Amino acid sequence: MIRIGVVGFGTVGQGFVELLAARKSVVEKLVGEFRIVFVADSKSSISGSFSISEAIEMKRRSGRLRDDRTAMELIKEEDFDVLVECSVTKLDGGDGLRYIREALKKGCHVVTSNKGPLVAAYDELMKLASQHGVELMYEATVGGAMPVIRLARKYLAACTIERVSGVLNGTCNYILSRMEEEGLPYERVLSEAQELGIAEADPSYDVEGIDAAAKLVILANTVGIRARYEDVERKGISSITPEAFRIAAEKGYTIRLIAEASRKRLLVAPRLVRKSHPLSLRGTMNAVVFNTAEAGSIAVAGRGAGKYETASAMISDLVDIYAG
Amino acid sequence: MIRIGVVGFGTVGQGFVELLAARKSVVEKLVGEFRIVFVADSKSSISGSFSISEAIEMKRRSGRLRDDRTAMELIKEEDFDVLVECSVTKLDGGDGLRYIREALKKGCHVVTSNKGPLVAAYDELMKLASQHGVELMYEATVGGAMPVIRLARKYLAACTIERVSGVLNGTCNYILSRMEEEGLPYERVLSEAQELGIAEADPSYDVEGIDAAAKLVILANTVGIRARYEDVERKGISSITPEAFRIAAEKGYTIRLIAEASRKRLLVAPRLVRKSHPLSLRGTMNAVVFNTAEAGSIAVAGRGAGKYETASAMISDLVDIYAG
Repeated sequence: MIRIGVVGFGTVGQGFVELLAARKSVVEKLVGEFRIVFVADSKSSISGSFSISEAIEMKRRSGRLRDDRTAMELIKEEDFDVLVECSVTKLDGGDGLRYIREALKKGCHVVTSNKGPLVAAYDELMKLASQHGVELMYEATVGGAMPVIRLARKYLAACTIERVSGVLNGTCNYILSRMEEEGLPYERVLSEAQELGIAEADPSYDVEGIDAAAKLVILANTVGIRARYEDVERKGISSITPEAFRIAAEKGYTIRLIAEASRKRLLVAPRLVRKSHPLSLRGTMNAVVFNTAEAGSIAVAGRGAGKYETASAMISDLVDIYAG
Repeated sequence: MIRIGVVGFGTVGQGFVELLAARKSVVEKLVGEFRIVFVADSKSSISGSFSISEAIEMKRRSGRLRDDRTAMELIKEEDFDVLVECSVTKLDGGDGLRYIREALKKGCHVVTSNKGPLVAAYDELMKLASQHGVELMYEATVGGAMPVIRLARKYLAACTIERVSGVLNGTCNYILSRMEEEGLPYERVLSEAQELGIAEADPSYDVEGIDAAAKLVILANTVGIRARYEDVERKGISSITPEAFRIAAEKGYTIRLIAEASRKRLLVAPRLVRKSHPLSLRGTMNAVVFNTAEAGSIAVAGRGAGKYETASAMISDLVDIYAG
């Protein structure tokens, strides 16, 4: 029986427990029986015998769970095999970093959707996992349900990855592709995206390329390029004009926010992309292209984020740990 | 120490041992130490202490290996942990089917690049593997180095896959995209493809959709749609005209040979594809799109075949078996 502890119980954590319950029989065929032994956030928790749907209902209604014990207390006190860590990303690592450290030191596997701890302490955490003979999995941090991390980490192991490039932020891609299609200025499309809930009230984390840079740091480290957040050259999309799209289109190009990692550079910036290229996608989609020496380029595309997309990636990590 | 036996020693088998040797240290970090204990084809073999490069040289020069023992004899007589089966595809299963059965019954894992055994006996072989507690892996049968099978089999386990569609044959895609770009008739582009070695002298296996249908049967079974080769509605590309491309282009479409599996149908046929769609790719590329209920559509694209692409997929299977 695999005992799963969940910390962070916002959209991502709730999506994870919901999808896991919905797909229980399929997942159990792959990994064996499992049980969620606790769910916690930074201030409250529920453990022992409880119903997932009641926990979700309680959190939605009151903003908290049944008991006063915190995520950190449960990680320290409870017996479990794998921590599913869904805290909100803070680039300095935040609470998530402390949770993950604690769980790894206890000899538990960790599956996280949280970019912060990996951006802040990739090497330290991977070393810690390896010292304790456990896995630290983070497919959900980049590209939603797409198997981006898994490709980089395991399935292209036979290949020399020379360059990884991608459209890693759905909000920017939505804004740029709307600007292209409608010939509208940046500010106008940004407002529209904010109304639709695609962009935040403070959009800087997305439109200045911060989110894409964080993901690029994770991707780069995964393919063996040591990278810190400060190493990324970064430029956002707010200065792109409809005219730029018109000029690009004359030559068969569009403009996308491209994140690129190679031995030579780490860059997030708006760039010209040929319209037939896999990275020229529209809407909130994400895509990643791996250029390999042996097997050409391999592209993956899909929704970059979303409740069940992220949940699907975390479940695939569980499958990867236990169905080997 | 993982003991690997290789049967089938044409382009694919040679590519596998070459790439595995080149990437030995990286792969051993993931799976532990391994050794190739024999290489065999249907008429000859080499085992015990031998150099891989000498074996390749011998096969290239004389068309055979050092000893008279055959692949089947080695599978029966030698001790090994995993059989890497690279025989040429025969839709009735051919020698490969017999090799795989024998290895699974012996309790050995199997990694194959051979579509035939899976098309002919998918259920039987998966059951056999499960009965003997071993893995039967076949990433290399569909889409070269792209993780198509792995997505279908494991990493989208959390999602309900409603439809799988793909461009699964690089030769057809090359011919169709050249016809589109140059406005040339089918016969002319086929000759060009034959000169370039992209199409065979007898092109029917590719251009009539047989190869794509075989891959579709494997994909369908992998996502839980029971399918036999005879169940696939199949139409080839030889009747497509340059005019058809012109008419399609007026509406923003192109024409591609699309393989599609859903609960409702199994189909390989030339179809209209919007030019912005992930399946509208050019040249010998392949792509597969999974439509899921929970995580939208996920597309993968890359070279569909090739010596090292196939080898990379087989090595990723090894990694999957041993790095769990």
